[in-house]
Amino acid sequence: MKIGLVDTTFARVDMASFARKEIEAEWPQVKMISKTVPGVKDLPVECKKLLEEEGCDIVMAFGMPGKEPIDKQCAHEASIGIIQAQLLTNRHIIEVFVHEDEGKNDADLLKVCKNRAVKHARNAIELILNPKALMARAATGVRQGREDVGRIR
Amino acid sequence: MKIGLVDTTFARVDMASFARKEIEAEWPQVKMISKTVPGVKDLPVECKKLLEEEGCDIVMAFGMPGKEPIDKQCAHEASIGIIQAQLLTNRHIIEVFVHEDEGKNDADLLKVCKNRAVKHARNAIELILNPKALMARAATGVRQGREDVGRIR
Amino acid sequence: MKIGLVDTTFARVDMASFARKEIEAEWPQVKMISKTVPGVKDLPVECKKLLEEEGCDIVMAFGMPGKEPIDKQCAHEASIGIIQAQLLTNRHIIEVFVHEDEGKNDADLLKVCKNRAVKHARNAIELILNPKALMARAATGVRQGREDVGRIR
Amino acid sequence: MKIGLVDTTFARVDMASFARKEIEAEWPQVKMISKTVPGVKDLPVECKKLLEEEGCDIVMAFGMPGKEPIDKQCAHEASIGIIQAQLLTNRHIIEVFVHEDEGKNDADLLKVCKNRAVKHARNAIELILNPKALMARAATGVRQGREDVGRIR
Amino acid sequence: MKIGLVDTTFARVDMASFARKEIEAEWPQVKMISKTVPGVKDLPVECKKLLEEEGCDIVMAFGMPGKEPIDKQCAHEASIGIIQAQLLTNRHIIEVFVHEDEGKNDADLLKVCKNRAVKHARNAIELILNPKALMARAATGVRQGREDVGRIR
Repeated sequence: MKIGLVDTTFARVDMASFARKEIEAEWPQVKMISKTVPGVKDLPVECKKLLEEEGCDIVMAFGMPGKEPIDKQCAHEASIGIIQAQLLTNRHIIEVFVHEDEGKNDADLLKVCKNRAVKHARNAIELILNPKALMARAATGVRQGREDVGRIR
Repeated sequence: MKIGLVDTTFARVDMASFARKEIEAEWPQVKMISKTVPGVKDLPVECKKLLEEEGCDIVMAFGMPGKEPIDKQCAHEASIGIIQAQLLTNRHIIEVFVHEDEGKNDADLLKVCKNRAVKHARNAIELILNPKALMARAATGVRQGREDVGRIR
Repeated sequence: MKIGLVDTTFARVDMASFARKEIEAEWPQVKMISKTVPGVKDLPVECKKLLEEEGCDIVMAFGMPGKEPIDKQCAHEASIGIIQAQLLTNRHIIEVFVHEDEGKNDADLLKVCKNRAVKHARNAIELILNPKALMARAATGVRQGREDVGRIR
Repeated sequence: MKIGLVDTTFARVDMASFARKEIEAEWPQVKMISKTVPGVKDLPVECKKLLEEEGCDIVMAFGMPGKEPIDKQCAHEASIGIIQAQLLTNRHIIEVFVHEDEGKNDADLLKVCKNRAVKHARNAIELILNPKALMARAATGVRQGREDVGRIR
Repeated sequence: MKIGLVDTTFARVDMASFARKEIEAEWPQVKMISKTVPGVKDLPVECKKLLEEEGCDIVMAFGMPGKEPIDKQCAHEASIGIIQAQLLTNRHIIEVFVHEDEGKNDADLLKVCKNRAVKHARNAIELILNPKALMARAATGVRQGREDVGRIR
């Protein structure tokens, strides 16, 4: 299995490293390829290239949109593009975006970033190697970045 | 006939199970295949894969967007992707989304989820096996999740 | 000439019937094929199937979005999909949407629905059989659902 | 060179005529083909058909969205479709939209319409026959509909 | 290596020139081709043509949306199109948009434009010739138009 990791120079937290460490530790047999683009709107095509030109089975797209309305709009445009890239390749791209205003302070933001990057790294690997692990967690209120919220009964 | 059911680990109510039970009870001859992805934005490509790679005639996509504006935006992006996936495959994907703030409380939310999942399971099966049943209900104010509202005369 | 008519079980007024009657009365030689889907987001692919699999020259898509913001968003997503379906087929799909809050009351809403369905049925037929009739009305402030507003001079 | 002109019955000012007169007067050798559709959402596919089925080198799409929020949304959907149509054909479609609330009064609105239609007719012709003329005006604050605003130095 | 530069007549600052000078000075071996279109919504297809018909390895798209809500919407539509153009070509298009209201005054706006154009010119060249340079700046809070904001630790 081969996974692509694409991040941006714009982001202020190195989320891809959290994911790389998790994958190295838990799935040492998985091959990784990393790329960096300027901002979130450059992610869709870079992810598609990794799937089509580098033979990745799945890609993680890391981004950290800023606090301004224009940043939110860029993230929205990037998300639409990331979904389109998946539809054109029939492969998954796991979007790992943390908005800069999600954290109460820098320490909290770092915590959100690490939690989300690590949990989504597991999701990405399991989607390819062990989809039954995801099915076992179906509809259980899983959250990436914060604590799970659980199922409503 | 073969139907795909895709849900998320993010959701807090197991809507796919409601649909599976309905289909098993009413259309035991229909084959089912189930998948789970992390969140609603991962649904479009998974549905497309079920249609193209697993030979499904139709797919149901279950999601439960959260209460925050960012959750609403994710649902919007997922919906656009689900429609695109249909246009690229010429097959239907029935979107079964329940927003977490649709219910007055947990019990009510569960009721909305069950009602919507079961009614849309019937819609999905009828679209393939009995389209005339849908035509008989044309423009009659059918609702999934709540009571039908009826035709205006 | 063959025209497709797709409506929804969600709608509360039977707009497709208004269109069918108009076409039967005025263009009896035109073949019609009708389909019903659950809601407006199911319209794009059904219209595309009628164009590609049933040989329709044009399709009318009837929908009645509800009053809530989520309904408006669904209509927006459906409209984007309907335009995409046209671009993928090089055929027209005439969108006939009436928002449930367009009418002052039920009687007025019915009137809007009938007016819009009938006028757009004529538009659809003329786009195929008599495009010069549309050109003769170019830029004259034509409205479907209400009275025409006329040209500004 | 062949140019397509598509307008709507919905519009209240005959912008296509302004463009036709300008082209006839200044570029008599340019062939023109005209079409009319009901509203702005019908423009994208008609433009694409002119490019693909009628051999146009470029198309102008004239529309006049109304004053209501729903009209603005229709224009937005049409614009997305017009951009998609260009990407699918590798040809330009010059969108010439004037919102009905752009004018202070009817006389002013007419003036905006004429100015925008004529200037964009020149843009469309120059994109095909004389792209250097556009390059000479690069980043000079050109406006269609109102006076140019000039370069910031 | 060959880079395309597309700008608009609408913009009020000549950003493409800033980029051209930077590239000429630092990477004299890189071939450049320039185009001008009327406005930002004309950028997506022109960029795609440069990639597909002129053999560019990458394209920069320069635009300066105005201050009004309609200008913001045009920029949003253009951005969606620019992302789609990348997905259809598997090549990068670096969007260099400066909103007219980003500057406190004309002098500040000019400074933002120059900073963004020059930094993105470097990004574009490095994406093709030296992707490791971008990887070295991954997640370091790089900004184009203003000072970098740095990594959160």
